Parts: sequence; structure tokens; C-alpha cells
Amino acid sequence: MSDATEAGFALDPRLAHDTAFVGDDVLCRVLLMDDARFPWLILVPRRAGLTELDALGAADSAQLAREVHGAMRALRTVSPCDKLNVGALGNVVRQLHVHVVARCEGDAAWPGPVWGSGAARPYTPEARHALIARLRAALART
Amino acid sequence: MSDATEAGFALDPRLAHDTAFVGDDVLCRVLLMDDARFPWLILVPRRAGLTELDALGAADSAQLAREVHGAMRALRTVSPCDKLNVGALGNVVRQLHVHVVARCEGDAAWPGPVWGSGAARPYTPEARHALIARLRAALART
Repeated sequence: MSDATEAGFALDPRLAHDTAFVGDDVLCRVLLMDDARFPWLILVPRRAGLTELDALGAADSAQLAREVHGAMRALRTVSPCDKLNVGALGNVVRQLHVHVVARCEGDAAWPGPVWGSGAARPYTPEARHALIARLRAALART
Repeated sequence: MSDATEAGFALDPRLAHDTAFVGDDVLCRVLLMDDARFPWLILVPRRAGLTELDALGAADSAQLAREVHGAMRALRTVSPCDKLNVGALGNVVRQLHVHVVARCEGDAAWPGPVWGSGAARPYTPEARHALIARLRAALART
């Protein structure tokens, strides 16, 4: 992490409210969505003022792809799944963020998208703590 | 386009059914979703057997990002919008494909995702033809 990366960056309050901190990768803050229905990471590039993917320069774009791929591998490790969903929507929260969600056939939203699908079911503190520890270990290996 | 890119590639029949051909970029086939509710491109890397983003090598991943960014700029050109949504889901069609969708506040699914949101409203042949021509011109400039 460098000061240049972080200059002016502040996490959107809605994202902060809905998630738990997992770690900071080279470019992105990695967050766990507090919804036990789906193993779900959110990657937020630590750049001020970004809303769209094509505002990233080539180097940041390549780094984001590496970090998305790492998040996919980490989710697979902690929670075997049938499909991974990756999306940058931003209709509600405009700060650029990328969802990486492990999906299982028959899960609460299958085969639809997770966004807008019912109410989140928060983790218990113990389950959240344990999952974050496993995610950190898996991310460190990617 | 090279034979190596195309080797063994065949477009999923469901994607072919739901879309119209726009063009082939360096890596991806570019398709227009036949749903007049949302200006919506789908990019399909012309590689056989891909289902997940992290199966792409670094060079293909960077090329995909360039083509996604180009699709975003082309959609903005032909249809001013409030937000672009980018997603690779694949719960229904497993062949790797990336959605790039121009969203406007108050559109048929706003602020929810387009996937699974009601029935598609096909373009008239004239409207589809005209939009594809404008998209081709815009993509050629990106």
C-alpha cells in the first residue's frame, strides 16, 4: 500500500455499513458482505473519485483483474461453489466496487443475481470472525 | 482475429438466440442483447471451454478489460446513461460472457440489476439495424 494509492480515498459509508474489513490488497480494499446466504467479497480500488471501470488506467485495470482473480480463488478455497459471479454495478453506491460472489445451485437467489434478492442474513460474530480468518489465509496464498 | 483465438470456439445457442451480432473485436465476439429496455452489449471471449474470468491468462485478461472499456464508451456514445453495469454471472449460460449495460435512473429495472428483471422487449428490425450501425461506428472509434 502506498500513500499515492490512498490519497483522498474514503470508503463509502453504505459499503462500510454492509461489510466487514478483510484486508488491503495492492490496489483494493477487500470487504466481506455481511450476508451469510452467499460467500461474497467486495473489492474497492483505493482511488478517490472513481465510479466506472473504464476510469482505471491500464496498470490499475490489470491489477484489479489480478485481485478479482485472487478473490475468486480464495472464495473457492473457503466455500466450494458451482459458479462465481463478478459484477460492477454501482446503481445504489456509486463508488467503484467489484462484487465477487460464490454461487451454489439452489442458493437463496439461484439462478438469479444476488443484488436486490431479499434481505441480507448477517453472520453471527463467531461465524464472521472464522470466515474472515479463512479468507485472509486463502488470499495470502493467491 | 486469428485461427488460434477461434480454435474450437462456438457461441452458446442461448446467447445466439437472445442477441444480434455486432462484430468481432480482437478477443471477443460483441453481441447486442435483443432487449430494447436497456442498451446492452455482451462480450464473449472467442476461446473454447471458458466459464470463469480467472481462467483467462494475463494477456487475454488485459485485452478483455480493453474491450469492456471500449464497449462502455460505445454505449455512452449511442445512449447517454447514468451508470454502466458490468457483470460476468453465468448462472444460466456457463460460457464465459461479460455483460455491459447502460442504465438510466428510472429504467425498467432501476436501481436493481437487469438480469432476471421481467421479460425482454425485442427491438423492431429497423431499430435494431440502426442501433447496430451506430454501435459499430462507435466501437470502431474506441
